[in-house]
Amino acid sequence: MIKARVTVTLKNGVLDPQGKAIEKSLGALGFGGVGSVRQGKVFDVELDTKDRKKAEADLSAMCEKLLANTVIEDYHVDIL
Amino acid sequence: MIKARVTVTLKNGVLDPQGKAIEKSLGALGFGGVGSVRQGKVFDVELDTKDRKKAEADLSAMCEKLLANTVIEDYHVDIL
Repeated sequence: MIKARVTVTLKNGVLDPQGKAIEKSLGALGFGGVGSVRQGKVFDVELDTKDRKKAEADLSAMCEKLLANTVIEDYHVDIL
Repeated sequence: MIKARVTVTLKNGVLDPQGKAIEKSLGALGFGGVGSVRQGKVFDVELDTKDRKKAEADLSAMCEKLLANTVIEDYHVDIL
């Protein structure tokens, strides 16, 4: 069994209103010096295989097809 | 300026219907051997400080107060 963490983040330059809202809320809560906040997603995936190469290839394909919108998002796969 | 990544994930045992839905969709797309999928959030935060200790303390406080629901979620802070 292989465990992996896939991180999907917005590409630079893509507007992130949710991140902006969090940034303002942190300011309102009294946290000073918060430069910028950008929100993304993580997926913890378990795969029933022992083949790391295949797992990496599968996870990239999953990102391309479902987990990430590659027009506006980047993804990163970490095998744990 | 300190950059940090905060990862918020559901605690073990907490139901994750969104993860389950992704799991099923991956199966429907033809990806076999997907054991489990759990979804979480990441926040990329920039702080205007050079004090790592203070940054870590601030980020933990942000998680406790706003970024995570500590009843059902765990958080992890990485200073990059």
